[in-house]
Amino acid sequence: MKRQKIAALIQAEAPIDQVLVKGWIRTRRDAKSFSFIEVNDGSCLANIQVIADASLPDYDQVRKLTTGSAVGITGALVASQGGGQRWEIQAESLTVYSLAPETYPLQKKRHTDEFLRSIAHLRPRTNKYGAAFRIRSELSYAVHRFFRERGFRYIHTPTITGSDCEGAGELFRITTLDLNRIPTRDRQVDYAEDFFATEANLTVSGQLSAEMFALSLGDVYTFGPTFRAENSNTRRHAAEFWMIEPEMAFCDLAGNMDLGEDLIKATVGFIIENCPEDLGLFARFVDKNLMATLENIIDSDFERVPYREAVAILERKGKQFEYPVTFGSDLQTEHERYLTEKHFQKPVIVYDYPKTIKPFYMRMNDDNETVAAMDVLVPSIGELIGGSQREERLDVLENRMDEMGLAKEPYWWYLESRRYGTVAHSGFGLGFERLLMLVTGIRNIRDVIPFPRTPGSIDF
Amino acid sequence: MKRQKIAALIQAEAPIDQVLVKGWIRTRRDAKSFSFIEVNDGSCLANIQVIADASLPDYDQVRKLTTGSAVGITGALVASQGGGQRWEIQAESLTVYSLAPETYPLQKKRHTDEFLRSIAHLRPRTNKYGAAFRIRSELSYAVHRFFRERGFRYIHTPTITGSDCEGAGELFRITTLDLNRIPTRDRQVDYAEDFFATEANLTVSGQLSAEMFALSLGDVYTFGPTFRAENSNTRRHAAEFWMIEPEMAFCDLAGNMDLGEDLIKATVGFIIENCPEDLGLFARFVDKNLMATLENIIDSDFERVPYREAVAILERKGKQFEYPVTFGSDLQTEHERYLTEKHFQKPVIVYDYPKTIKPFYMRMNDDNETVAAMDVLVPSIGELIGGSQREERLDVLENRMDEMGLAKEPYWWYLESRRYGTVAHSGFGLGFERLLMLVTGIRNIRDVIPFPRTPGSIDF
Repeated sequence: MKRQKIAALIQAEAPIDQVLVKGWIRTRRDAKSFSFIEVNDGSCLANIQVIADASLPDYDQVRKLTTGSAVGITGALVASQGGGQRWEIQAESLTVYSLAPETYPLQKKRHTDEFLRSIAHLRPRTNKYGAAFRIRSELSYAVHRFFRERGFRYIHTPTITGSDCEGAGELFRITTLDLNRIPTRDRQVDYAEDFFATEANLTVSGQLSAEMFALSLGDVYTFGPTFRAENSNTRRHAAEFWMIEPEMAFCDLAGNMDLGEDLIKATVGFIIENCPEDLGLFARFVDKNLMATLENIIDSDFERVPYREAVAILERKGKQFEYPVTFGSDLQTEHERYLTEKHFQKPVIVYDYPKTIKPFYMRMNDDNETVAAMDVLVPSIGELIGGSQREERLDVLENRMDEMGLAKEPYWWYLESRRYGTVAHSGFGLGFERLLMLVTGIRNIRDVIPFPRTPGSIDF
Repeated sequence: MKRQKIAALIQAEAPIDQVLVKGWIRTRRDAKSFSFIEVNDGSCLANIQVIADASLPDYDQVRKLTTGSAVGITGALVASQGGGQRWEIQAESLTVYSLAPETYPLQKKRHTDEFLRSIAHLRPRTNKYGAAFRIRSELSYAVHRFFRERGFRYIHTPTITGSDCEGAGELFRITTLDLNRIPTRDRQVDYAEDFFATEANLTVSGQLSAEMFALSLGDVYTFGPTFRAENSNTRRHAAEFWMIEPEMAFCDLAGNMDLGEDLIKATVGFIIENCPEDLGLFARFVDKNLMATLENIIDSDFERVPYREAVAILERKGKQFEYPVTFGSDLQTEHERYLTEKHFQKPVIVYDYPKTIKPFYMRMNDDNETVAAMDVLVPSIGELIGGSQREERLDVLENRMDEMGLAKEPYWWYLESRRYGTVAHSGFGLGFERLLMLVTGIRNIRDVIPFPRTPGSIDF
């Protein structure tokens, strides 16, 4: 007989004479002549309740079943007499695949997130983390579906790169040299012996590569791992995270804002529609305001505010911030959250930032003081998206690189894209984990990544 | 007016009074009183033909348009009088965004794959590479769709790992130490000062992590970048490539084979159905046998042959191989291709390999000599999938690790999964680029990766 998943059984339209389920014991309660067993197979949040009668041939085995033990059960799917579930299984036979010892760490009690991080290989067996990672999977799918429906092509930009292509952050170096015997030449590392015969790093962004494909295929996006070697232990930063980076030819900053707003609304809406049970767990136990936050995002027209105006708003409230704000300063999370949560009480897109705080590739505005940048800020998270129209004018781009003291030679290919058929184009980066934190209400990035990497932490 | 993509226009059901297209000039031919322009915007293989009449206000601009120049054109979409296309645009206005100089490398002539690799930032603008990367995108989508329809969850396993989790290949080391000043302690590298405070590598496989999630959520898969620091310059190997790794709880080797066969058939079928134009290019110009190869894969029941029997078949043909085969030797590509292309003339699944040539985690068969491994071999590629049922019995697994001299401490979490509710489970790895090479007939892995990484090569 073919095994059925619990996710399918709990949706059954009618009783089924015989079913086979396989899963793990969550709890067992014994009555005089039978036992209740709650079985979970990870396919959904819900357990299926199994009634194991004392007349079962293997009933002595049933009485030994511990939390975490693995079983296979055949029986009839029947309407449940008790409350809380529509269907239950009246067991006809039961096979024990393995008994979990009493030392199994996930006994039925409340565990802290910190403890569960120390057993990241087991935590997806809990209700909360099972739900989080099922939602992570659905959210990934929502991203791919969103872009494909709009004719975007998915591009796998390289993880290993030859240069820090935007100065966006601290780099991880990649090498095959023996660190105990670094070969040298003139007292410096001799990269001739390294795998790529030059310095190599983990990517901080696929943008520059994606631009090459936007200028070929039109609308493209990346969705892959990205890295920052920043030695900061905050609940918002991880050394390895997944980033989504769309890039569009023939698109200006306004079109870029439209896409960002659409992407957030569509993916949040997809989860509300497709993951009601898993999302319900977070709405009940993790963040009581979760559904209100998400509905607000979906229902609002995102406010669009020039940076200059945003700064003026913040200056009027200056006293309450730890960091002061003036034109030319980067907005801190406290400022971003004030704008979106308090002042506008909905998502906000801040645009036209001073060129002094933005990278070389952003398009210069006519004022020669600001660039066509935009950040999307959302309640409970702050910055969720950062993007810009790209500088498509070769002379302006080269001037800007000179101004910032950037060597042009490593960017020869990037500059060629402005020499051959250059056109207006735009794009942005969205941190996938931040989107997932928004959707679940989980407040620590370590708790939305299967096996998080942070300073000093590379277990599993 | 909103821009329309050429992919949509060529599917039009009726003429359209006014359209706006934006794209790049492929060719221009001038007649006495008008010019033909072929415009491509990357949304599809086809160009749209534009008729620019000499009466156009900007007609002097039209006469200057070079290959690679970027334009915006408004006009009427009308039935084409000429052959080769159903629709063309009668231009009403034309805007030149940028003129490409005559030095633009992609002039209308045949370019070698080697040359195009040297301009990987421009090659997706050619018909062949545009088609290849559109198919790459669709094939990625096909993979996600396949798994989601079957209830699999997508897991992002870490790229940065603490150990070589299966000895599968040469490793890239990751560090934030200054290679010119490696800190030492007792004459060895002092990793205490490194980012993760220990050795760190790029992943060679997400399998062991994925197993943890299979034993929690049931059916899962990974799809992400994977790395090999092998210093081999072949047309089949890249230092960075994307791998698909499903892992299923409550699944034995036969179920694993079923999934592999289904995955290959479903994704190949998806491309045949969804990318007829792009695929047609490869069938016409790259591999005349392509469609026959693909149809054979879709229509065949994959042959399932024990390794022992496969070796016997090869031994009977021993003379024609460069490498001899006996029981206990790893099959070479020449052997794999002989089996699938010549002997069976369809995909073949070889299973039950000698334990001596397989990793520690594969499930020991009752003969104590072979393990429950399987490789899927397909014509024109050879090995496309390698997988196994995993050893779920803690004592057998530990014995095997001892036999192979593997330290158990780094695998403490992996071993715990066999202590707590262990169950039969299986999975495999499929190299995404090999699947793409199968589908397109492209014979060099460098030509299916946007920016390939190979020894000494990290440009772009």
